[in-house]
Amino acid sequence: MEASSPSGLWITLEGGDGSGKSTQAALLERWLVDEGRTVLRTREPGGSDVGVAIREIVLHHRGDIDPRAEALLYAADRAHHVATVVRPALERGEVVVQDRYLDSSVAYQGAGRVLDPTEIRELSLWATGSALPDLTVLLDIDEGAARRRLDTSRTRYDRLEAEKAEFHARVRSAFLDLAAAEPERFLVVDAAQQIDVIAETIRARVTTALGS
Amino acid sequence: MEASSPSGLWITLEGGDGSGKSTQAALLERWLVDEGRTVLRTREPGGSDVGVAIREIVLHHRGDIDPRAEALLYAADRAHHVATVVRPALERGEVVVQDRYLDSSVAYQGAGRVLDPTEIRELSLWATGSALPDLTVLLDIDEGAARRRLDTSRTRYDRLEAEKAEFHARVRSAFLDLAAAEPERFLVVDAAQQIDVIAETIRARVTTALGS
Repeated sequence: MEASSPSGLWITLEGGDGSGKSTQAALLERWLVDEGRTVLRTREPGGSDVGVAIREIVLHHRGDIDPRAEALLYAADRAHHVATVVRPALERGEVVVQDRYLDSSVAYQGAGRVLDPTEIRELSLWATGSALPDLTVLLDIDEGAARRRLDTSRTRYDRLEAEKAEFHARVRSAFLDLAAAEPERFLVVDAAQQIDVIAETIRARVTTALGS
Repeated sequence: MEASSPSGLWITLEGGDGSGKSTQAALLERWLVDEGRTVLRTREPGGSDVGVAIREIVLHHRGDIDPRAEALLYAADRAHHVATVVRPALERGEVVVQDRYLDSSVAYQGAGRVLDPTEIRELSLWATGSALPDLTVLLDIDEGAARRRLDTSRTRYDRLEAEKAEFHARVRSAFLDLAAAEPERFLVVDAAQQIDVIAETIRARVTTALGS
């Protein structure tokens, strides 16, 4: 990120729900603090004062929100969050550990097949003055396979469950495509591994990033 | 607007604060109802259920909102308003009389000189699937001149007042540029005229639009 001081570092965690982002963010924060770093833990949506109000609309509005309005609300949350929370922390030389950023918007929109994911990416880049993290950890897990293993005792899926599984497979595939397009920024970790094995893999990459 | 039935008509009113938009919207609505038309009076921001919540953030948030976040919130309001209020009314064949639309965003951003007005226009067009009104009435008034006339007894302006006057002059100039670029869509009316003279000018143009 252009405006960051040399010592600031911006790390985002991406992946499907239940991929272990919060657990890994907490372990990473504890380790960084032990290493003597100041850490800012944050998230999107809802990582700023304005963002909390926006998150309330997006997640708890009764009735449907127009898909473009929803995308614009996420982008507004992102603009204010980066400008008032992330960028100042980086300028103070802190390490920002953030749950979800623009890759989530792009992957979920791509999977939802309503809006063009390329347009969603451009919207996010416009919102933030093209701010991209120094490192993005993708916690990759085949949720469909995991769920199917759990459900071996059941004889059949209903249509809604099948659709859900298909949606999650598309989200996963979209995340992997994003990672493949920016291998320098992304660290892809198999989230089916042991928690401490994953944490160690992330720490190794963060150590490199902090040293560079 | 593409999706409108042949009999629906979408009219927006634009101009600075105090240019008489509300007065003229009320007169136009009464006349249209007398003519047997169904009229939907609406406004931006805040013309939909989601929009009321967004308007609350934009107008009443304590503390500054990042300029891009603010522009995105206005665009989100616009997307939801057009999709859930304006477009359905036009499809029912109604006449929509609306206080402010994208021209206000473009003119005020241009005058504020923080964001690029062309980008603001593109954002609004993306938000609404490029929906543009059939007719836009610009109530043009030289607020600066009006105020100076009122203030002849005073010997000098302070800097803040001078800045305000300059800002309003830039808004006015931006609106006039927009009207010049789309003469088919715009009706520019000298808002310093008598209220009923202005109303008659608007009715004449609306009559033509309804007849076509």
